[in-house]
Amino acid sequence: MARSFFRKNIDAMGPYVPGEQPAPGDRVIKLNTNENPYPPSPRVLEAVRAAAELVRLYPDPESTRLREAASRVYGFPPDWIIAGNGSDDLLAILVRAVAGEGEIVAYPVPTYSLYRTLVRAQGAVSREIPWPGDYSVPPGLEGRLVFLARPNAPTGTMVDLGQVRDLARRCGGLLCVDEAYVDFADDHALPLVREFDNVVVLRSLSKSFSLAGARVGLGFARPEILQGLRKVKDSYNLSRMAQAAGEAALADLETMRRNVERVRATRERLARRLRDLGIPTLPSQANFLLAQIGPRARFVYESLKRRGILVRYFDEEGLRESLRISVGTDEQVDVLLGALVEILRAEGA
Amino acid sequence: MARSFFRKNIDAMGPYVPGEQPAPGDRVIKLNTNENPYPPSPRVLEAVRAAAELVRLYPDPESTRLREAASRVYGFPPDWIIAGNGSDDLLAILVRAVAGEGEIVAYPVPTYSLYRTLVRAQGAVSREIPWPGDYSVPPGLEGRLVFLARPNAPTGTMVDLGQVRDLARRCGGLLCVDEAYVDFADDHALPLVREFDNVVVLRSLSKSFSLAGARVGLGFARPEILQGLRKVKDSYNLSRMAQAAGEAALADLETMRRNVERVRATRERLARRLRDLGIPTLPSQANFLLAQIGPRARFVYESLKRRGILVRYFDEEGLRESLRISVGTDEQVDVLLGALVEILRAEGA
Repeated sequence: MARSFFRKNIDAMGPYVPGEQPAPGDRVIKLNTNENPYPPSPRVLEAVRAAAELVRLYPDPESTRLREAASRVYGFPPDWIIAGNGSDDLLAILVRAVAGEGEIVAYPVPTYSLYRTLVRAQGAVSREIPWPGDYSVPPGLEGRLVFLARPNAPTGTMVDLGQVRDLARRCGGLLCVDEAYVDFADDHALPLVREFDNVVVLRSLSKSFSLAGARVGLGFARPEILQGLRKVKDSYNLSRMAQAAGEAALADLETMRRNVERVRATRERLARRLRDLGIPTLPSQANFLLAQIGPRARFVYESLKRRGILVRYFDEEGLRESLRISVGTDEQVDVLLGALVEILRAEGA
Repeated sequence: MARSFFRKNIDAMGPYVPGEQPAPGDRVIKLNTNENPYPPSPRVLEAVRAAAELVRLYPDPESTRLREAASRVYGFPPDWIIAGNGSDDLLAILVRAVAGEGEIVAYPVPTYSLYRTLVRAQGAVSREIPWPGDYSVPPGLEGRLVFLARPNAPTGTMVDLGQVRDLARRCGGLLCVDEAYVDFADDHALPLVREFDNVVVLRSLSKSFSLAGARVGLGFARPEILQGLRKVKDSYNLSRMAQAAGEAALADLETMRRNVERVRATRERLARRLRDLGIPTLPSQANFLLAQIGPRARFVYESLKRRGILVRYFDEEGLRESLRISVGTDEQVDVLLGALVEILRAEGA
């Protein structure tokens, strides 16, 4: 038998499985990875082009101009802001900086499955606490590090801000509020960064700013916390193009807000139409809906896929009877609904 | 006193310090971070522009087309290749996957200082073994993971390939041959990836391919090894623009080779001129020279900086009497040499 060169926790774990990315040219309706159906600000393209002219030079390791742009938008000084190669990079940095081998990272489940992957890769221990039926903060979320996705994925649900404050007080470690989807929601947790010394809020430009392909995430926390996180970040974690894309996107909030409004309107329309078809959804504050299909969920997923419509099916506890549907354009949603009617009719006959 | 949220090893460590990046618009001669003085293939700009058109969509998590381009250039199947957000990303992945807390990572010193930073961040233990006077492989390089930079930074020296083979046999773990600078050298270690089950070779497109600002690194190893490394890599570690830039650069080897030949010619000329000034250099196979200035090294560094010429000074054991000078254009090198003559004359007077 071949020898292994890896740590035991690495050998024991599987990889994180991202949603499928169809090959370029595949004609599919892609509602499986929560991308924005609308393009980003036209300034992004200009900025990327200009940045590429200087690609022979290393990028700014501190993403200074990007952080200054974020400072103008969010009202925190630049030294309260850290930039990541996507917010996934910042999640990984948090686990690596905070949770040693055998130490506890707590989060409610189901949630973003990357948390579990990161904890396993670190050799730390996951404390996974099921959401209660009303998707409020469950008791027992305590550890060196606590993750709270708000809105949560893949449920789209959102805990009350007062509950997040309580959690910050009693979680016993660092609380990371992962707000990747928050621009589609009604409020956000950034005020907690000033109120507490143990709160980190993460943002992603992938969804609301339509920059999934550029990998730009932002973290907000007190400077003392960010100093620790910087020690474990790759020094040049954002390319020149990523920094420029993020900076340009943040300088055009109007485009982002217009796209978000369209997605929110389509989300409500999709939820109503699904309900009319007898498919309940959880109340979503994100750019996706968790549609509670029932025992046929996997069959419906596969039937949609055969018709060139990709949604997300999670083969795991608590999710096997649901499909996560990213909110696309109204046209894409109409095609999806038409296909669902046909699949359910054939099935129900 | 404020409580700390970090692991003890994180609190105890300082951050990795990259070379200074002057602000845009600063008129400096930048010979401090080993960038290529010549631009990349013009195809890169085209490819980045096209990739940015689809920036609202996530990138391919496996960097498939980039790895296929690398496969055509280097002759390994794509499943023997992994892509990183710069080779720094791959170095971090290796440490995280292989070395648990308290486990040993060995490397000769002085070398790329990121190795030490990564080992500390992991809570692993560095076994640092000084290079012998002839910069051959020192005895005692044994651990879960061994790093060997070839050519080494910041010395530019290169161990014999036969010695690397011996090291692969007896290092007791995974051997990572870090070939970030190898395109400027006379041979390379890629054949060892086929010969041994424990060798990983890393390449960077930052230097020879002039893509420092895009963050593209490549790792070559047996598929069994890459399967382990993939578990700890960020799923979307390379942006669409980075993947496209790397693919385009690899498809135009002529531009890379022409730039490399120019840098090599300037390197030899610079080494001769420094010798004429009484400044010996170590024999370099990289795109920089370690100039052995003597006790005045720091003063010379600061004097050059005042004249707008950036080189690299390392305030650490074995390097305090040297300056690392990146090989720029002939014109930049002439300005540097003129300034050195003046500084040394004023000093020696």
